[in-house]
Amino acid sequence: MFKRLLTLTGSLIAAMALGAVQAKPLPQEDLSVAEVLRDRALESSDAYSIVESLTVEVGPRRAGTEGDRRAVAWAQQKMKALGFDRVYTEQVEVPRWVRGHAHAEVIAPYPQPLVVTSLGFGVATPEDGLSAEIVEFADVEALLKAPPEQVKGKIAFINKRMEKARTGEGYGPAVQGRSRGMRAAATKGAAALLLRSVGTDSDRFAHTGMMAIDNIENPVPALALSAPDANLLEAMLKRGGPVVVRLDVDNERLADGPSFNVIGEITGRERPEEAMVIGAHLDSWDEGTGALDDGAGVAIVLETARLIAELPVRPRRTLRVILFGAEEIGLVGAKQYVDAHRHELDNIIAISESDFGAGKIWRFDTRLPENKFDIADQMMQLLAPLGIERGNNASSGGPDSSVFVARGVPAFGLYQDGTDYFDYHHTPNDTLDKVDPENLRQNVAAWVVISFLAAEMEGDLGRIPTKTD
Amino acid sequence: MFKRLLTLTGSLIAAMALGAVQAKPLPQEDLSVAEVLRDRALESSDAYSIVESLTVEVGPRRAGTEGDRRAVAWAQQKMKALGFDRVYTEQVEVPRWVRGHAHAEVIAPYPQPLVVTSLGFGVATPEDGLSAEIVEFADVEALLKAPPEQVKGKIAFINKRMEKARTGEGYGPAVQGRSRGMRAAATKGAAALLLRSVGTDSDRFAHTGMMAIDNIENPVPALALSAPDANLLEAMLKRGGPVVVRLDVDNERLADGPSFNVIGEITGRERPEEAMVIGAHLDSWDEGTGALDDGAGVAIVLETARLIAELPVRPRRTLRVILFGAEEIGLVGAKQYVDAHRHELDNIIAISESDFGAGKIWRFDTRLPENKFDIADQMMQLLAPLGIERGNNASSGGPDSSVFVARGVPAFGLYQDGTDYFDYHHTPNDTLDKVDPENLRQNVAAWVVISFLAAEMEGDLGRIPTKTD
Repeated sequence: MFKRLLTLTGSLIAAMALGAVQAKPLPQEDLSVAEVLRDRALESSDAYSIVESLTVEVGPRRAGTEGDRRAVAWAQQKMKALGFDRVYTEQVEVPRWVRGHAHAEVIAPYPQPLVVTSLGFGVATPEDGLSAEIVEFADVEALLKAPPEQVKGKIAFINKRMEKARTGEGYGPAVQGRSRGMRAAATKGAAALLLRSVGTDSDRFAHTGMMAIDNIENPVPALALSAPDANLLEAMLKRGGPVVVRLDVDNERLADGPSFNVIGEITGRERPEEAMVIGAHLDSWDEGTGALDDGAGVAIVLETARLIAELPVRPRRTLRVILFGAEEIGLVGAKQYVDAHRHELDNIIAISESDFGAGKIWRFDTRLPENKFDIADQMMQLLAPLGIERGNNASSGGPDSSVFVARGVPAFGLYQDGTDYFDYHHTPNDTLDKVDPENLRQNVAAWVVISFLAAEMEGDLGRIPTKTD
Repeated sequence: MFKRLLTLTGSLIAAMALGAVQAKPLPQEDLSVAEVLRDRALESSDAYSIVESLTVEVGPRRAGTEGDRRAVAWAQQKMKALGFDRVYTEQVEVPRWVRGHAHAEVIAPYPQPLVVTSLGFGVATPEDGLSAEIVEFADVEALLKAPPEQVKGKIAFINKRMEKARTGEGYGPAVQGRSRGMRAAATKGAAALLLRSVGTDSDRFAHTGMMAIDNIENPVPALALSAPDANLLEAMLKRGGPVVVRLDVDNERLADGPSFNVIGEITGRERPEEAMVIGAHLDSWDEGTGALDDGAGVAIVLETARLIAELPVRPRRTLRVILFGAEEIGLVGAKQYVDAHRHELDNIIAISESDFGAGKIWRFDTRLPENKFDIADQMMQLLAPLGIERGNNASSGGPDSSVFVARGVPAFGLYQDGTDYFDYHHTPNDTLDKVDPENLRQNVAAWVVISFLAAEMEGDLGRIPTKTD
């Protein structure tokens, strides 16, 4: 950097200080290679066979379970078969939990069974179950505002619907009930929490997912209801009079145990210690086979790396694929990775993660210093023919990536069409048949463009401001 | 009849004997009333609130269960509230069965849980389950042709896909595996039957339904797999090597018990002993709330009768609504009705049943003597504006109606669009949210036309040939 600065004029130095200097443009030869890779991906990439393999040969793989261990073995084997130069794991400690049964039924006024599932790390009911009247709240805020005597001893029913959107933007508001509802219910003295599933389908599947569980003195059982079952309770409540529900739930918390980040590298030819990181998470929830969440992401980034490994020469930097462990239960693998590698994060030119299903990519977001926007513009020239538009510069890069972004690592965000993603998210219905091989080819085509160009580029992408800056 | 014959010429008498005589046309005033009823149904009929009431206040109602008893009480109360002149029940004896749990999992080579459900009246496994290799068959015919040594001790896996069609015509071929598969498996010495669900969805729901169970010496456990789970087994088998599945099923057969046909009548003003019969079945399978099968049908025929009861005068004949008991487990209510009333079947001018979900009606089929086609043509003039086309003369009138048709009773068939019907059929996902109130109004509009005109017409619709004729 010093040598280059010597050749700059004073005004340019001033402009750089203001973040306004242009990045050195990517050379045409790099763009040409990226274009060839893109078109090869469109024609013949086969991420589908990777997600098929993961869902058939491993299936459910919640962090800390047997399935997780099988997934870790599968991932290492797959990376080796795909031509990675180096494959290794890094152990992380994860909280563990056993899902038992979860039965719920209306016992008055209209006896009917309900389809429910325990939210992640939820506690059991007493062995012979519990029965209580339900009390409905529009959202977790309403529950938090309720006088305790309205809630005490009852089952709090949070009945908030999630809006469907291509961006998935309905998730943020809806997921509050899942992340904070149990704590709110416990604090108010409720007997349990029933939550309208955080999802956009109208199928008889309850959507599981993580709750905030730390520092809650008396946690209570917490269950998601399928949308049709939430409708049923709503309809019964509208008729007036008490609605009494019986719950019978058995779960068990275990001591923490090991899981792993699985890491594969295409070693850089000039600066192997520097890396472009692309990622996905290897763990899944336990009721589906994790095809969309996040088998598709695993397949997309692995196939991207395979295409780059097939080039006659390695890119300048290392391309590092991290399959994060224990994303679902709190970004555990990403947090421990960033912590373990905190002194090497400046070697990561940028990060991006695929974790939003298997829809087509429609938008290219970034998180770059302003003076690097030109690089994104050049990437856009190759992405636009894939039907991708330029988005904003507020990307988190994906859930696990956000931990890196918080430490200043730049990020790319290849935004998938998530219209249907929350129809299947965290349900038994997250299975391979929801994945369209054609969409995956379009994904890999976009991923290979940004991955190759970032790994190959001569300059860097700077750092982005962090909260502590 | 004798008096009218006296006025006929010889050639007309000969033509009648050949069945070629034209029916007396329906008078314009009847058609005008029917048109008013039709338009009133389109504007303001509310079958939706009836199916809402049934699914919320009763829900699952498999024949012979507590839910069934509640449904019978509900139906009588609803008929009275809707203005029927006479409401009564007729007891029928039904086979009974308790559904316990049904767990299945692949234990080798790729351990994974499977989503399954017991087929109706299936037997239990030994208390500690059973494990066996699966052996795949394209359909029940292939299983029947297999050498016993290929099947003995294994789990027969019938992997036939059902075709999706507006007519539902894929059901007939696909349902063979369900109705005959367990017998075939038992005869070949299989340990159990696994059946790709008879359904057209790709969701993680297994479709239950009735099997032939009589006169099978050593019945074996029989389970339906959801489509994604059948895909999973298929994918594992394609990799070669044995696939071993463990089953743990608990069901119990009970002694026969009572259920009921619930009958409501709008009494005819001139010939009360004669009746136009419209029906649906009150029972449902036990895992959904029976919204499409057959809550929608119950609602459509009840609302049809309500509209006719609101007329200033009763139609000439009685309009009889029969809500059949125990249709799902073998047309039990219909068979016992026809048997109990075998000497009065000639008083039934025609029958029709609504039992194909809640889609729009698109075709008008009949089962009439040829010399009554003119009546159907007149009805068609009022049905065509609803988007309904004329179909064939091979209608069964619906499942329960077919028992009447076999005894010579003419039938009408208002054919619904069944494209999505088998996505939900016999699954937990058969719930109210799948019902579109607008479609129900179109249904009632069509039903009220044929119901009123048949109840009101001066002449009859003859008898149709039966197998014993």
